[in-house]
Amino acid sequence: MARTARKSAATPTRSRRSTTTSGAAPARPERNGKLIYTFPEGNAGMRRLLGGKGAGLAEMTNAGLPVPPGFTITTEACNAYYAAGRELPEGLWDDIRAHMADLERETGKGFGDADNPLLVSVRSGAAFSMPGMMDTVLNLGLNHETVAGIIRLTGNERFGYDAWRRFVAMFGRIVLDIEAAAFDEPLEALKERRRAKADTDLTAKDLQGLADQYQQIVSERTGQPFPTDPYRQLEVAVRAVFDSWFGKRAHDYREFNKIPHDLGTAVSVVTMVFGNMGADSGTGVAFTRDPNTGEKAIFGEYLTNAQGEDVVAGIRTPAKISQMRNELPEVYGQFEEIAEKLERHYRDVQDLEFTIERGKLFMLQTRSAKRTAPAAVRIAVEMVNEGILSREEALQRVEPAQIVQLLLPRFDEAAKAKAKDRFLAKGLNASPGAATGKAILDPDRAVEAKAAGDPVILVRIETSPDDVHGMLAARGVLTARGGATSHAAVVARSMGLPCVAGAESLRIDYAKRQVRAGDVTVAEGDMISIDGTTGEIYAGELPTIEARFEDERELAVLLGWADEKRSLQVWANADYPRDAERARAFGAQGIGLCRTEHMFFEEDRLPTVQRMILASTRATEAKHRREAGGELSTEDRETVETFDAALAELERLQTDDFAGLFRAMDGLPVVIRLIDPPLHEFLPSYEELLVDVTRLQDRLASDGDNGARSPLDAVGDRVTPALAKGLQRVLGRKDAERAMKLLRREGKASATPSVQGDRATLESALAEKTELLHAVEAMREQNPMLGMRGCRLGLMIPDIVKMQTRAILTAAARVAGEGVTPLPEIMIPLVGHVNELAETRRILEGEVARIVEGSGQTVAYKFGTMIEVPRGALTADQIAEHAEFFSFGTNDLTQMTFGYSRDDAEGKFLLQYVDRKILPVNPFQVLDREGVGQLVRLATERGRATRKDLKVGICGEHGGDPVSIAFCHEVGLNYVSCSPFRVPVARLAAAQAAIAGSEQRDK
Amino acid sequence: MARTARKSAATPTRSRRSTTTSGAAPARPERNGKLIYTFPEGNAGMRRLLGGKGAGLAEMTNAGLPVPPGFTITTEACNAYYAAGRELPEGLWDDIRAHMADLERETGKGFGDADNPLLVSVRSGAAFSMPGMMDTVLNLGLNHETVAGIIRLTGNERFGYDAWRRFVAMFGRIVLDIEAAAFDEPLEALKERRRAKADTDLTAKDLQGLADQYQQIVSERTGQPFPTDPYRQLEVAVRAVFDSWFGKRAHDYREFNKIPHDLGTAVSVVTMVFGNMGADSGTGVAFTRDPNTGEKAIFGEYLTNAQGEDVVAGIRTPAKISQMRNELPEVYGQFEEIAEKLERHYRDVQDLEFTIERGKLFMLQTRSAKRTAPAAVRIAVEMVNEGILSREEALQRVEPAQIVQLLLPRFDEAAKAKAKDRFLAKGLNASPGAATGKAILDPDRAVEAKAAGDPVILVRIETSPDDVHGMLAARGVLTARGGATSHAAVVARSMGLPCVAGAESLRIDYAKRQVRAGDVTVAEGDMISIDGTTGEIYAGELPTIEARFEDERELAVLLGWADEKRSLQVWANADYPRDAERARAFGAQGIGLCRTEHMFFEEDRLPTVQRMILASTRATEAKHRREAGGELSTEDRETVETFDAALAELERLQTDDFAGLFRAMDGLPVVIRLIDPPLHEFLPSYEELLVDVTRLQDRLASDGDNGARSPLDAVGDRVTPALAKGLQRVLGRKDAERAMKLLRREGKASATPSVQGDRATLESALAEKTELLHAVEAMREQNPMLGMRGCRLGLMIPDIVKMQTRAILTAAARVAGEGVTPLPEIMIPLVGHVNELAETRRILEGEVARIVEGSGQTVAYKFGTMIEVPRGALTADQIAEHAEFFSFGTNDLTQMTFGYSRDDAEGKFLLQYVDRKILPVNPFQVLDREGVGQLVRLATERGRATRKDLKVGICGEHGGDPVSIAFCHEVGLNYVSCSPFRVPVARLAAAQAAIAGSEQRDK
Repeated sequence: MARTARKSAATPTRSRRSTTTSGAAPARPERNGKLIYTFPEGNAGMRRLLGGKGAGLAEMTNAGLPVPPGFTITTEACNAYYAAGRELPEGLWDDIRAHMADLERETGKGFGDADNPLLVSVRSGAAFSMPGMMDTVLNLGLNHETVAGIIRLTGNERFGYDAWRRFVAMFGRIVLDIEAAAFDEPLEALKERRRAKADTDLTAKDLQGLADQYQQIVSERTGQPFPTDPYRQLEVAVRAVFDSWFGKRAHDYREFNKIPHDLGTAVSVVTMVFGNMGADSGTGVAFTRDPNTGEKAIFGEYLTNAQGEDVVAGIRTPAKISQMRNELPEVYGQFEEIAEKLERHYRDVQDLEFTIERGKLFMLQTRSAKRTAPAAVRIAVEMVNEGILSREEALQRVEPAQIVQLLLPRFDEAAKAKAKDRFLAKGLNASPGAATGKAILDPDRAVEAKAAGDPVILVRIETSPDDVHGMLAARGVLTARGGATSHAAVVARSMGLPCVAGAESLRIDYAKRQVRAGDVTVAEGDMISIDGTTGEIYAGELPTIEARFEDERELAVLLGWADEKRSLQVWANADYPRDAERARAFGAQGIGLCRTEHMFFEEDRLPTVQRMILASTRATEAKHRREAGGELSTEDRETVETFDAALAELERLQTDDFAGLFRAMDGLPVVIRLIDPPLHEFLPSYEELLVDVTRLQDRLASDGDNGARSPLDAVGDRVTPALAKGLQRVLGRKDAERAMKLLRREGKASATPSVQGDRATLESALAEKTELLHAVEAMREQNPMLGMRGCRLGLMIPDIVKMQTRAILTAAARVAGEGVTPLPEIMIPLVGHVNELAETRRILEGEVARIVEGSGQTVAYKFGTMIEVPRGALTADQIAEHAEFFSFGTNDLTQMTFGYSRDDAEGKFLLQYVDRKILPVNPFQVLDREGVGQLVRLATERGRATRKDLKVGICGEHGGDPVSIAFCHEVGLNYVSCSPFRVPVARLAAAQAAIAGSEQRDK
Repeated sequence: MARTARKSAATPTRSRRSTTTSGAAPARPERNGKLIYTFPEGNAGMRRLLGGKGAGLAEMTNAGLPVPPGFTITTEACNAYYAAGRELPEGLWDDIRAHMADLERETGKGFGDADNPLLVSVRSGAAFSMPGMMDTVLNLGLNHETVAGIIRLTGNERFGYDAWRRFVAMFGRIVLDIEAAAFDEPLEALKERRRAKADTDLTAKDLQGLADQYQQIVSERTGQPFPTDPYRQLEVAVRAVFDSWFGKRAHDYREFNKIPHDLGTAVSVVTMVFGNMGADSGTGVAFTRDPNTGEKAIFGEYLTNAQGEDVVAGIRTPAKISQMRNELPEVYGQFEEIAEKLERHYRDVQDLEFTIERGKLFMLQTRSAKRTAPAAVRIAVEMVNEGILSREEALQRVEPAQIVQLLLPRFDEAAKAKAKDRFLAKGLNASPGAATGKAILDPDRAVEAKAAGDPVILVRIETSPDDVHGMLAARGVLTARGGATSHAAVVARSMGLPCVAGAESLRIDYAKRQVRAGDVTVAEGDMISIDGTTGEIYAGELPTIEARFEDERELAVLLGWADEKRSLQVWANADYPRDAERARAFGAQGIGLCRTEHMFFEEDRLPTVQRMILASTRATEAKHRREAGGELSTEDRETVETFDAALAELERLQTDDFAGLFRAMDGLPVVIRLIDPPLHEFLPSYEELLVDVTRLQDRLASDGDNGARSPLDAVGDRVTPALAKGLQRVLGRKDAERAMKLLRREGKASATPSVQGDRATLESALAEKTELLHAVEAMREQNPMLGMRGCRLGLMIPDIVKMQTRAILTAAARVAGEGVTPLPEIMIPLVGHVNELAETRRILEGEVARIVEGSGQTVAYKFGTMIEVPRGALTADQIAEHAEFFSFGTNDLTQMTFGYSRDDAEGKFLLQYVDRKILPVNPFQVLDREGVGQLVRLATERGRATRKDLKVGICGEHGGDPVSIAFCHEVGLNYVSCSPFRVPVARLAAAQAAIAGSEQRDK
C-alpha cells in the first residue's frame, strides 16, 4: 500500500474544511474495496474492519434480532482518510449519502425532514477499546426544524427541547472539542435562577433557551455558526471520529502499548430509537447472568421513559430489570429470549444495551461480560452442564489469577464502602487476602501479642529474616518500604499471609511506637485492616469473609476437569507441616521446595543457630586437623564441643520438622533443600552493633579514658587490646584471635546493651559487643547473593550437610515406622559446577552409609539439585550425571541471568524499566522467555540427554504464574511448584497450557 | 589389560620377601613384551616407557656420546609388579641378571668380583618428575670384599671406605627407609670425638669404623643383616623404586593432580664411574648456555676429584666450569663439543651432568634447562639466528607470563639476600614488580607525601575506590586483607603498580599510624620495600633495577615475529593518556577499555561528582516535568542548576581527558565505556557516617537533651525533625524530603566531624551528617554488583550519557583540529536486554544530532556494547542489531555466570575450591571454557549471524592471560584488551595460539 501523505500523520490538526474544498488536488488513495457495510453485510468476525461495536451490531442483525438499521464506515476508510492527508477518501461521502438514503427508505423517515425526521447516533469503534477515542453522539440530525417535527410527532415539547439542548452540548463537547464546563455552567446558572433542584425541574421553555445559548457558545468558540444542516453535522462527526484516532492521548497510548497505528477506527451510524417516548418506552443495560455470583438469571438495570445517557449519568436511579417484567411483560419476555439466544450464539455471558421505543425492543450493543472470580467459575461450570461449552472451553474461560481471590479472606465490600473515612493509605498489593488486627511494630511484641490471644498485623518499615517469627505470629504484614519482591512480600506470599508493602506515605516511628498517615496517628495496639488484594489500609476493624476451599463446589469441578487435561504436575513450596497440609488440600501432588533454613529463623532456634555459626569455621578447621592426626588445643576441643552440641540440638528440631512434613505428604514426594542463605543472615545487624559499640565507647570515653576510637578501627585490626594481650601470651597470635571469637556465647547476640551501669559493666558490654561486631564483620559480604551460600556453605562446613542428611533420614525412618510412606528428595542449592554437586554427594553419601551401618536399615531417597546459576544451566549435561532431578530456581536464575538484584532493582530502576517499556514485563513476575527461558529449555534438554528419566521442575515464584506455567508446559517440565495458595491457579493454568498446546498441534 | 590384583594397590606395605618365596602362587601378569632396554635400544621418544632419565641416557648413547653402559627396566615392569601384588613379574629377575652379565662383559668387571668389582647406580625415573620417588643410590655392589678390591685398584684406602660408608648410609636411608638422622648422628659424634671440622678430616680408619657402625644400625632397624650380596642389594633397590611409586606422597600427589596411577616408574641401572679417583677425575653440572642471561657460553660448576653427591651437598665449594678448561683442557674441549652436539640434537639449551674418571668423560644426564625470563627470550631469538630453531618454535619456547618479569622493576637479588633480617612478612603476589618507599597509611597523606617529593608505598588494611587517588600517588600498594582480585590487586594491576595483598600477619593500626609485623613496628613514614612478583615485604630500602622495554632488543625481535604469526589483535585497557602511551609503546593496537569513572575518582573531581550525584534524582525528575510542560518550584530550579553546573564541570574535565587519550592513540581506536559503577561508590562510607552521627547524638544527649536515639531510627523514617517541620509547612511532605537532600553541599562528605564544640556547632554538624547519612542510605544496595549501575544508570539519569557523549565528540573534534586522527568507539556497559541498548542509543544519538546541528561538523564514532551479563550473551543476536562491536567483560560475566561475587568468593571459598579441586582453576584468572566460554562462543556466533562484520573483543582481566587468549583465538575474536603491561604477554600468547591452531589444522 504505497501512499503519499500530504501531511504528516504525527502532526494532527483538525480540518474543518468541506470535502469540496478547492486548491491543489490531494493525492487520492486507491480504493481497496467496500468502505461501508450495512449491518446485514457484516458479522462478528469482522471486528478488525468494523470495530467491536460495528461487528456486534452486524452479528445481532444477522441473528434476526431487533437492531435499529444502520451501517458502519470501515477502519480502512479511516486509514485512507489519513493517507489522503485528512481528506475523506474519494467516493466515501457519496457512499455515506447513498447509505443514508437507504436508511430513509427503510425507516420511512427523512434525514432533515421536519415532518418525520430521521435521527442517528454516530459511534466510534476500533478493534480494541482505547482511551482518547470519540464518545457516541446521539440525536444527530436535530435542528430548529426537525426538533419542531419531533415535538409534533411525540406531542412532547419538553422531550423535544431536552433532546435538542442535549444534542447541541454533546456535539459541541464531543465533536467540536469544547470543554464540558462551557455547557455545564449556563445550565447550573439557569437552575439556580429557577431554584430548580434537578434538570427535570426545568421547563420546555428553559430548555429551548438553553439550546439557543449553547448554539451561541459554539459559534463563539469555533468562529462558525452551529451546523444546522444534518449532513454537515454528519460529516463533521465522522471526521471527528477519524481525527480522534490520531489524537494525542490515543496516539500515545498505542505507542506505549505497541499497538499498530494502522488499525484505524470504524464509525457506526445507527438510526436513533427513543426510550424516552413515554411509559411504554425505556432503556437499560443487562447481563445474561449475574456477573457477581454467576447465577443464571438476567441481571441489570432499567429506566422507563429515558435515554441511555440518563442511566449512565445517574440523573435518575434506575430500577432493577425485574421491574420490567411487571411493567412491560411482553417486551421482557422477548428480551429474555434474545438474551438466551445471544448467550448461546456467542457461547458466553453477554453484556447488553437495549432501548424500548413505544413497546418495541431494540438491541444496541452486545459484548462478553466482565465478571467476578466466583461468577467466572460458576458460569464456566454451568455452561458445560447446559451443553453450551465443552470442558476445554470452560477451562479457558476462567483467568487463573482470579482463582486466588476465591481462596482468600476478603473484606465485606459493604463494610469497606462505609469505612471510607477510615482509609489511611494505599500501598502495593503484595500478597492477596484481607486481614484485620492490632498494629504491632516489633516482631517480639507480635509474638507476645499473639500469645496473649490478640490478632496481629505486623507493621515494619521493611522486614528482614529477623522479623520472620513476628510474621509467623501475624495475620497480615504491612511495610512502608519495598516492592513486590521485597522480603516482606516474598515471605508473606509463601506463607499465604496478606501483605501490603511499600506504603510509602506512612511514617512508621519505632521509637514512639506509632504510625502516622497524614494527620491520623495509629498507636501500637490500635486495630488496623489491610487488604493485600487491593493494597488498601484502613484504621480500625473491618469484617472479613473467610473463604473455604471445600465450599467452592464449582471450583472443585472445574479443577477436576483441569486435572484431566493437564500433563504438568503441580507441587507446592512449603516449609511447615501446616503449609504442606493446606497445599495437599489444594491439590498439590508433592512438596517441590522445603526451605530448611526457614526453620532456623524461628525465635527459639535462632540462639542455637548463632552458636553453631560462630563456632563453625574454627570447629571445621579443628576437625580437619584432628582427622589428619593432629592434636587439638583445649580451646579447639571446646569449640568443637560447642559446635557439635548446637548441631545436635538443631538435628533434633529438624528431625521433628521433617517428620511432620512427611506425615502431611504421606505417599507424595517432599523435596528438601539443604541450607541456602548466607550465614550472616542469622546474626544480628552489623549497623546496629556498630551503633551500640560506638555508644559504649563514647560512654567510657566521657569518663576520661579511652580515646574516641571508631569501632571501624577496631574491626580494622580485629584485636581488642584488653583481651588480646593475655590470650596472645598463652596461645600465640593466630590462636588468640580464634579464641576470642569463641568468647561469644548465647544471648550476646540479642539485647541492646544498656548504656547505663558502672564502668566494669560498660567495659564488659563493650567487649562482648565488639567481639560480636567482629564476628559479623568477618561474615559480611559485599554481594551476599553471590557469596558464601547454597552448596558453598555445605562444602565449607560439611557438618551441616551431614546433620541435615541425618535429620531427613531419621525422620523418614521414624514415620515409616508409623505406617506413613515418606518420599524424601534431597536438593542441593546453587550448583554452578558439577564438582560442587559431586563433592556434596560424596559427603552426603558418606553420612548415609554411616547411618545405614549404624541402624541397619536403609531409607530410599532421591538426590538432585537446583538449577539457579547460569553456569549450572549451561553445564546441565554434566550435572545430570549426579542429579536424579533438577528444580529451576528461577528467582535466582533471573537475578543472575539479568544481573539484577531484585531487592535493589525493583526500587531503583526495574519498575521504571517496565513503565518505559524497556522491559515488556517484570521478569521476577513473568518468566523471561528469551533469556532465562532459553537457559531453562537448554538445561532441560541437556539434562535429559544425559539422564533420560531426569525429573525436572520449577520452584521459583514463577511456578505460580500462569504465563510462566504455559512456558513450563511447552518446555516439557514434569512439574511446577508454587506457594500453596497458588496450587489451584497452577492446576488451571497447566490445563490451559495443555489445551493451547494441543490446539497448536492440531493446526 | 585385565589383571587381577592380589592386594589392593592402595594399601602399600613394603614386601621384603624374596621373589622365590613359597606360598600360594601369585597371579602372574601376561608379558606384554620387553621389560628391559639397554641404552642403545632406547631413545628420547620412549620417555613414557623408560622414564625421563632412561630416555635421556639412551638418546645420548645412540648419539655416540660417552655414557657409562647400563639398562633401564620399563614402567610396564613396574605396573606388572603391582598387578602381581608386588611381585617381580615372571622372568624379570632372570632378565636383570642377564643384563648385568652383559654389563660385566662390556666393562670387563664383575658384579661382586673382589678383584675388579663392577659397581652400579640405581635410579628411578618416571615420565614426569614427582615428589616421593626414590632418590638415586650410588656405589651399589659394594661389600667388605669389593671395597677391598676398590682400594687395591685405586690404591686409595680413604676413597674406598668413604664410598663404602656412603653406600651403606644411602642404601639404609633411601632403600630401607631409615631416617637420615640415624646415620648423621654417629657421623657428627665421631667428628666431635676426632675434633674434625669437615668429613674430609676423618681418616680411612674412621670411615671404615663408621661403615661398620652403619651396618649395625641397619641390622637393628630392619631386623635383618645389611645385605652384602650385590644381587640382593640390586633386587631390594629395584623393588624399593617400584614401591616408592605407590608411596603415600607420590600416590597423593597423583590423586591431587589427576595423574594416572598406571604410568609407573622405570629403573635405570648404570655402571658407576668415579670422579673421585684423583686429580684427573672430577664431576660437574653445566648448562649449554647461561640460564640467567642466555649468553651462549657453557655455564656450570665443577669439582676435581669428587663424586656428584659432593657438588649437591655443598661439602666443597665447586669451581666455575671455566676452570676445567685450564685443568683438563682436552676433556673440556670434548665436553664443549658434546654440549654443542646435545643442544643441536635436542634443539634446546641442556642441563647436563657429567663425570670424568681418570681423564675420561662420561655423560650421566641431559635435560632441557630451566631458565630466567631474559635468558628464555635471548636463547629463543639467538637459536633462530643460529639456524637451530624456526621462528614458530622460538615463539613456543618462551612462557608468555615470563615476559612480564622483563618489563617490571625488580629488586637486586644480591641486595635482597643481604636484607634477610629485614624481612617482615609475605603476602599474595598480587601485581608484579618491586617498589620501595615510605609507608603511608592514608590516601590523602599519600598524595601530600608525593607532592613533597617522597616515594610512597600506600599501606591499607584493604582499599576501596576512596583510596584510588592515594594509589595513583604511590609506587606500590600493600594491603593486609584481600585476594588476587581484591580492589587493591585489580586496580594495581591495571595501573601496573606493584602490589602485595592480603599480608594477613601484618597489624595495620590507622590510629597509631603504624604497622606491626611480629615484634617489628614500622611507623608511618619509615621506608619499606615490597616485591609484588614474590609477595615479600622488607623493612627499609632495597635497590631496584628498572626495566626498559626499549632496551629489550631480543624481546622486540621475538614480539615482532609474534606479530607476524598472530591473527588476534592486542589492545590495552587504559584510562589515562600516560597509560595509553605506555600501552602503545608496548605494541597495543588500540584502547579496548577506557573506564571513564576512574577519572571521577580523582581527588579534585570527587566533590563535583558528589554534587552531581546528590542532585541527580531530583534534577532528572524536575527536567522530566519541565519537558512535559510542568512548572518547577524554586527548589527544583536550584537543584537543576546545581546538577547542570556539576555536569558542565565534569564535561570540561572529561573532554580534556579524552583529548589526551585520542592524541596518545592517534589513528588507533579508543573504546570509551560510559559510566559503570554504582553511584554510592563515589559517596562517603555509610558505616563511618553512622559512627559520626551516633557520636554527635551522644554528645548532644549527654547535655541532657535528645534521647539516645539510634541514627538507624532516623534513617528509618528519613526525616530529621528539626528541618522537616519548617520545610513541610512550605513545601509539603514530599518536596520537603527532596529539599533536605539538597542541603548537602561540597565538603560535607569528607572530614570526620569534630565532636568538640558548642551546642550549636554540634547540632549543625549532626544535621549535616544526618542528611548525608540518609542520602547514602538511600543509595545503598544489598548487592551493588547487580544493582543500579552500568547502562541502568544512564537510562535513569540520561544527562550523564549526554554529558559523556558531548565530552567524547568535542574532544575528538578538538584533536582532529590539531591534525590527530581520533577513532572513538562508545561502549555501553551491562546490557542484558536489547531495549536497554536501543534506548541508550536513542538518547545518545539525540545528543549527537544536537551537537552536529550546533557545530555543523560531524564526528565519526562507533557504537557498541559490553557483553557481561549472561542474558546479553544469550540474546546477542538481538543486541547486535544495535551494536557495531561487542566487548566481553569477562570479569562480570564470570561473576554472574558462576554466581560468584569475587570480592566475597575469593576470601570465603573460592581459593579452597581450587585447593580441593572442586574447581580446576580460579575462573577469575583463567577463563572458564565450559561455562563462561560457552557464552562467549555463543554470543560471538549469534552476534555475527546478525551483523557479519561485528567486531568482537574481550576487555576483562582474562585478556592478559595466555590460556584465555588461546581460547579467544579459537573462538575467533578480533582482539583481546589487557592492561598495558600485559600487552607484550598477549602478543606472544596470541602468536602461540595461532601456531597451535595451525598445527592442529595440519594434523
